[in-house]
Amino acid sequence: MLDQVQSPISLLLRQRAEGHSLPAGLYMRPDVFEADLDVFFRKHWIYVGLECDVPEPGDATVIDIGSSSLILLRDDDSQIRVLHNVCRHRGSRLLDAGSSVLSKLVCPYHQWTYELSGELIHAPHMGKGFDPTCHSIRPVQFRSIGGLIYVCLSDNPPKDIDTLERVMEERLAPYDIRNSRIAHQTDVIEDGNWKLTIENNRECYHCAGSHPELCVSFIDLDFGYDPESLGEDDRAEAEEHQRLYAERTAAWEAEGYPSAAFEQLAGNATNFRTQRLIIAGAGESQTPDATAACSKLMGAMTRKDLGDVHLWGHNAWNHFMGDHAVTVMVIPLAPNRTLVRTKWLVHKDAVEGVDYDIEKLTSVWIATTDQDSLLVARSQQGIEDPAYLPGPYSRFTEGQLDNFATWYVEQMRAHGY
Amino acid sequence: MLDQVQSPISLLLRQRAEGHSLPAGLYMRPDVFEADLDVFFRKHWIYVGLECDVPEPGDATVIDIGSSSLILLRDDDSQIRVLHNVCRHRGSRLLDAGSSVLSKLVCPYHQWTYELSGELIHAPHMGKGFDPTCHSIRPVQFRSIGGLIYVCLSDNPPKDIDTLERVMEERLAPYDIRNSRIAHQTDVIEDGNWKLTIENNRECYHCAGSHPELCVSFIDLDFGYDPESLGEDDRAEAEEHQRLYAERTAAWEAEGYPSAAFEQLAGNATNFRTQRLIIAGAGESQTPDATAACSKLMGAMTRKDLGDVHLWGHNAWNHFMGDHAVTVMVIPLAPNRTLVRTKWLVHKDAVEGVDYDIEKLTSVWIATTDQDSLLVARSQQGIEDPAYLPGPYSRFTEGQLDNFATWYVEQMRAHGY
Amino acid sequence: MLDQVQSPISLLLRQRAEGHSLPAGLYMRPDVFEADLDVFFRKHWIYVGLECDVPEPGDATVIDIGSSSLILLRDDDSQIRVLHNVCRHRGSRLLDAGSSVLSKLVCPYHQWTYELSGELIHAPHMGKGFDPTCHSIRPVQFRSIGGLIYVCLSDNPPKDIDTLERVMEERLAPYDIRNSRIAHQTDVIEDGNWKLTIENNRECYHCAGSHPELCVSFIDLDFGYDPESLGEDDRAEAEEHQRLYAERTAAWEAEGYPSAAFEQLAGNATNFRTQRLIIAGAGESQTPDATAACSKLMGAMTRKDLGDVHLWGHNAWNHFMGDHAVTVMVIPLAPNRTLVRTKWLVHKDAVEGVDYDIEKLTSVWIATTDQDSLLVARSQQGIEDPAYLPGPYSRFTEGQLDNFATWYVEQMRAHGY
Repeated sequence: MLDQVQSPISLLLRQRAEGHSLPAGLYMRPDVFEADLDVFFRKHWIYVGLECDVPEPGDATVIDIGSSSLILLRDDDSQIRVLHNVCRHRGSRLLDAGSSVLSKLVCPYHQWTYELSGELIHAPHMGKGFDPTCHSIRPVQFRSIGGLIYVCLSDNPPKDIDTLERVMEERLAPYDIRNSRIAHQTDVIEDGNWKLTIENNRECYHCAGSHPELCVSFIDLDFGYDPESLGEDDRAEAEEHQRLYAERTAAWEAEGYPSAAFEQLAGNATNFRTQRLIIAGAGESQTPDATAACSKLMGAMTRKDLGDVHLWGHNAWNHFMGDHAVTVMVIPLAPNRTLVRTKWLVHKDAVEGVDYDIEKLTSVWIATTDQDSLLVARSQQGIEDPAYLPGPYSRFTEGQLDNFATWYVEQMRAHGY
Repeated sequence: MLDQVQSPISLLLRQRAEGHSLPAGLYMRPDVFEADLDVFFRKHWIYVGLECDVPEPGDATVIDIGSSSLILLRDDDSQIRVLHNVCRHRGSRLLDAGSSVLSKLVCPYHQWTYELSGELIHAPHMGKGFDPTCHSIRPVQFRSIGGLIYVCLSDNPPKDIDTLERVMEERLAPYDIRNSRIAHQTDVIEDGNWKLTIENNRECYHCAGSHPELCVSFIDLDFGYDPESLGEDDRAEAEEHQRLYAERTAAWEAEGYPSAAFEQLAGNATNFRTQRLIIAGAGESQTPDATAACSKLMGAMTRKDLGDVHLWGHNAWNHFMGDHAVTVMVIPLAPNRTLVRTKWLVHKDAVEGVDYDIEKLTSVWIATTDQDSLLVARSQQGIEDPAYLPGPYSRFTEGQLDNFATWYVEQMRAHGY
Repeated sequence: MLDQVQSPISLLLRQRAEGHSLPAGLYMRPDVFEADLDVFFRKHWIYVGLECDVPEPGDATVIDIGSSSLILLRDDDSQIRVLHNVCRHRGSRLLDAGSSVLSKLVCPYHQWTYELSGELIHAPHMGKGFDPTCHSIRPVQFRSIGGLIYVCLSDNPPKDIDTLERVMEERLAPYDIRNSRIAHQTDVIEDGNWKLTIENNRECYHCAGSHPELCVSFIDLDFGYDPESLGEDDRAEAEEHQRLYAERTAAWEAEGYPSAAFEQLAGNATNFRTQRLIIAGAGESQTPDATAACSKLMGAMTRKDLGDVHLWGHNAWNHFMGDHAVTVMVIPLAPNRTLVRTKWLVHKDAVEGVDYDIEKLTSVWIATTDQDSLLVARSQQGIEDPAYLPGPYSRFTEGQLDNFATWYVEQMRAHGY
């Protein structure tokens, strides 16, 4: 007979074998999904948006994470604020999904009215004993790191976000993300668990077989290879690339651009990795021909040859290049459904049709994300099959997945599972 | 870590603070939804339809409540019957949703055939030992109160339905609802818990901001206000309305029309409230200009100035006016989905296009229900947000909600939760 | 109050009364559905397809059963294989739903490559320690009985499949199903529990009222009747049919065609029944006029007067006739959703439009299945109604349902429920 009592999550965590993908239950069980939301999307710092989502005072945008809804806004003093999208009266949503421009926050139910700071300034019929100062909209803890907004929904946020801030403020400074502009945005819903979406992003073992557009500018060798799997010519090419990478990194660093890989992964709460990578071919940008898509460069940049600063987090990946940036956030929707939101950033003064062509700017990552979405869905289906057994990661090409799985298990345990 | 064991419903009930909305779990948890269906829709009397849904012998209509399906019919002797829509052979549904005209009830599966009384009269191939008298369709307990059909699906129905019967038979008599006709019917599915649908109906704090059409004829002051919230002119107007209301009520009562508020709320099993209210403006009816929509008045009425007899129940609201009536039943479909079925009644001989214009008759409550549906959905979304905290009810304008929440908790406890 | 603890499945099984349909919970509870999948679709032999689904080397087709996905294929040596549709690397589905032609099985994620036998022959970047022989695709146990493919997903398959094999190889031999061709296939999703789909198929009590097309060739008397339910003429007709059936069976058997009923039902693990039945009217085939639909007969058959060899299993029904065969598999999708997949088989050389008309071949069972689908949906709805009580089976016409319910309870208990 089936186990009448489902195995506890802790047992699934113990069953995970080093070097192997996770036990099936961790990718599909509703109780694990709820635990994941709690641990990784409430008790960790997550990437949710950008300062340039709300460029002007009064700009607001709504970000939904599970059943939580957040308002990211710029107040009258041009300060960024993040507030819970919940009226303190009877809980009504204050703002609809999408973006809006506001002078006050007015609940559509009974017209309770709040300043953009969240302070309650009008609540009729509440009588004398009612204290409006106890009924401000609840604020959300956040940090803007180089213009990227990270929030933590817990009262006890991990402190090692400081490292992310220190490392990335410096690396992002030349790109001036705070003053960039969102040229395009897409939402793709993948039919898979959020961890499969992240695992898919952490290896380029599948790139050659699935991503012809990306492979023009992206170099899968940077993500590892088994020298014995390569023929003689390929091995020579790989060694040449290693040499070139070392040379470029040294040159970039000498010019004042931090470039070497920096990792804070398993063993830490806040999971991130950054590195400046060489762009292949024309060497400028992740476009169909690897040349820049935007003639006005990011921030105060004057060079297109500074490669691709990639930044990974546990719910994000980003690529910062001379002419544009691509930034992706990942939000779990269900055990087997995940939102992948991609934004393309350009210089705030760049004009579509003049400085850049939108198709050239966006086509590589639109194609890549669609391809990955199919792969993630296939993985989810196979993992839900009772015939699935956790399989071996390649220690050459899938080391980052092994590290991610290890970090996942560690953090679940650290939070009592 | 998350609680591995979900808090019992009894704990949620204990957490409810007087004067505040309910804890979130009571609006959204599937186990609470099942308990609500059991307590409030099986063990209490609920409003499900009207005698005039089935005006002629052989008329039948199907009413679905959760997984229960009821047949409301008028038998060959013109008596109303309510039967379970389940064949006693292998359980097949007997009738489809909607209305039909019948001489017998014949199961489409194996043609078992029943009288309209529910008696089994034909069941072939069942052999000698089979006793058809043990296989009648199961009847449902019901009462027709002034032509409104209330059912109770439990074997132990609350006795205080007697008060509702006594009070409302007298108040409804002049309107002769039994012999009215359904001129129009709408079904709206609200994306919220049934208790939010009822709470929304129990206050007019939101009317001014949301219901421009209703506010022509409806007077929100009747549902309470904080005098200190009003400016000097508004306060004077409110006091004038209070005086007028007292004067009219006294006059109506003197003329033999019971009008004063009557409440049987918290502290009782069967929850209802009735009162004769003044209609604003032209004073006749809930129409776009507050004049009567139907020239043939209800029942034997000769007057249009008798205001609006409202009747609230825990799954209903009604307005009985000189020219027509509006009657609404509320049926939970899911923790966050609720059916709101509205019927507009006119005199049985009133003819559309001659005695009334359907648009004028129905437009106010069609607009109001659509507006409320959006408000209920916003509330549900906000309450499902982990940032929701039960908020304070206005003691001036939301006292009925506080009473409803108190009654809800009492009744849950009375049934063992 | 509702039971806080749901009654265990074992209690539902004990509540089943002989001669009556099952308690409602067994048709609708999600935990029972999971148990059913485990017991009846993993631990028993189930019918999943045909050799002629994959007629040529390299042909493959995917069959989904719950979350399991199976690849039925014919390998390079023309041998049938059944493999799990799961890559041994990170679990990706290997093949999409539907049919394909293959030389190797290549996973679309990282191009791991397998022989059609399941043997892993290529897995790049896996390093020296990796042993491909430990990473073959997992095979599925199967038997081909007269060309019908049965699989068992358990390590301990019931041995009494041997009886099915012995009885049916002989009866199916003349029809040469292995070398037939699939002329048509339909998928119908019924909104009911799989057991209701099977119960519906195990009686012809409902035929006269629901299946006018089928009743041209099908004789409901073969499935039992209460003589006292029949008028004098009908009873005489029934007795005449009994006599005719005995005469024909004796004649067929004398000519070397096993025809008498053979049953292995309650008391056994593998549930099946077969019998050669008379076809009514023109006597040849289940078509609108009971004449053969296909002029080229099945296998090496030369006669159209050998009736209808029916074969029932717990997830299948089949009819083998002189000119064609109809074969149906039943796969549960949810507690209240069931896939019914029907295939019409003809001689492999029969040509559409020349030897047979597709409309004549398929119309009777297309109509019958659509009619049954509505009946099953009505049953499910009624059984989910709290007013449902298990009803009495007719001992004349529903004895097979009683036996099936008894077998169901026995097998659930035998697997620890």
